[in-house]
Amino acid sequence: MTHRFFVADEPVDDVVLGGDQARQIASVLRLVPGDRVTFVREGIEALVALDAVGAREVRGHVVERRPVDAEPRVRLTLAVPMLRGERTEEVIEATTQLGVARFVPFVASRSVVRDLAPAKLERWRRIARESAETARRGRIPIVDPAREWEALFAVLDPPVVVAWEGEATARLGDIPATRQLSLVIGPEGGLSAAEMGLARQQGATAVSLGRRNLRSETAAIAAVAQVIAQLDA
Amino acid sequence: MTHRFFVADEPVDDVVLGGDQARQIASVLRLVPGDRVTFVREGIEALVALDAVGAREVRGHVVERRPVDAEPRVRLTLAVPMLRGERTEEVIEATTQLGVARFVPFVASRSVVRDLAPAKLERWRRIARESAETARRGRIPIVDPAREWEALFAVLDPPVVVAWEGEATARLGDIPATRQLSLVIGPEGGLSAAEMGLARQQGATAVSLGRRNLRSETAAIAAVAQVIAQLDA
Repeated sequence: MTHRFFVADEPVDDVVLGGDQARQIASVLRLVPGDRVTFVREGIEALVALDAVGAREVRGHVVERRPVDAEPRVRLTLAVPMLRGERTEEVIEATTQLGVARFVPFVASRSVVRDLAPAKLERWRRIARESAETARRGRIPIVDPAREWEALFAVLDPPVVVAWEGEATARLGDIPATRQLSLVIGPEGGLSAAEMGLARQQGATAVSLGRRNLRSETAAIAAVAQVIAQLDA
Repeated sequence: MTHRFFVADEPVDDVVLGGDQARQIASVLRLVPGDRVTFVREGIEALVALDAVGAREVRGHVVERRPVDAEPRVRLTLAVPMLRGERTEEVIEATTQLGVARFVPFVASRSVVRDLAPAKLERWRRIARESAETARRGRIPIVDPAREWEALFAVLDPPVVVAWEGEATARLGDIPATRQLSLVIGPEGGLSAAEMGLARQQGATAVSLGRRNLRSETAAIAAVAQVIAQLDA
């Protein structure tokens, strides 16, 4: 299998790369003329044969071009709490592999971490890109800036489903077939009844993730896995 | 919610605890007489009111006793590869929350990590116990010693399903309702066709986890989440 790179420009017949990607091809992967890589952009992948490899510039030509068949049929947005340590980025890494299209980090009343530094947001975006490359996806997931709970629902595409431990009966499996879904996972301390009330006022519904108490990051990965298995038909 | 502890002996009316658990109640949680904790053993939980708290010995009495309703209806065994760093223990932690009953670590031809030191096995067993406590489960998952691929299938309860990237069509969703299932997840470099052939000779079937390339630990958590959602009805 070839190494994959998301590229900013559409690969035309002759390809020139600079910057980090040239450095990675030349110095990290140590590829040589004749080796092949795959460039990906907006759901199209181009198989490229390298003609000249330097740490500052890499040149090649397109051998084959085809659509990437790895994007899920459902456009899934994950509203993900800002968690302590590296837990949020672990969620972004895993659920990008599973097929999330967009992440919306948020802060709720019981959130311990309340600020998203610009450097951390950039890091999360890089993780989403690299994880999408590893997963052989056709698109890079979007990572939004952080929102407060009160402003969250205005930016989520409907239908919106909130995993809430106060819900007893409704399950993810009850969600009808849909081409688009937003899924909200609560922070370490859970969501309050008032927060769930506000979500309901804005059209969201609650679901239970089952009878066992899940950590926030496990809940996020498990819920995304279940939704993708169910709706990526 | 009360703190939960798995205990070795059935809680009778008067309870005495020593060792690590007494130390944790007295010195870490700093509980005092009158506080309550929950003792769990073999699917039964006992609510205990503390009468005397010391770092060497804690005494209490049972207030209420009831079955734990958090165990899944399906008995799921996860055959989990030994992964680099802390990845296997992350899988054990997350999938214990989701409801795995038994773990069987294994080594395959492309496994990078090939030895399971006794101290590491003990650590994994502790993580399984603590994660089951956090998840409010009724039983501690079993963690087996490591097996070679060739010896794996003799110790797995049928039916056995192997997540294999060489499988194009069969999906986890096709598994018929069952009260017991063993799920095998491959190591970082995947499983060879010869290994899958050996598995098939011993009655296992292959499934695909979808069109995206998943890291081993994401595959394990996602597959367990999907199986539990599907079979814990």
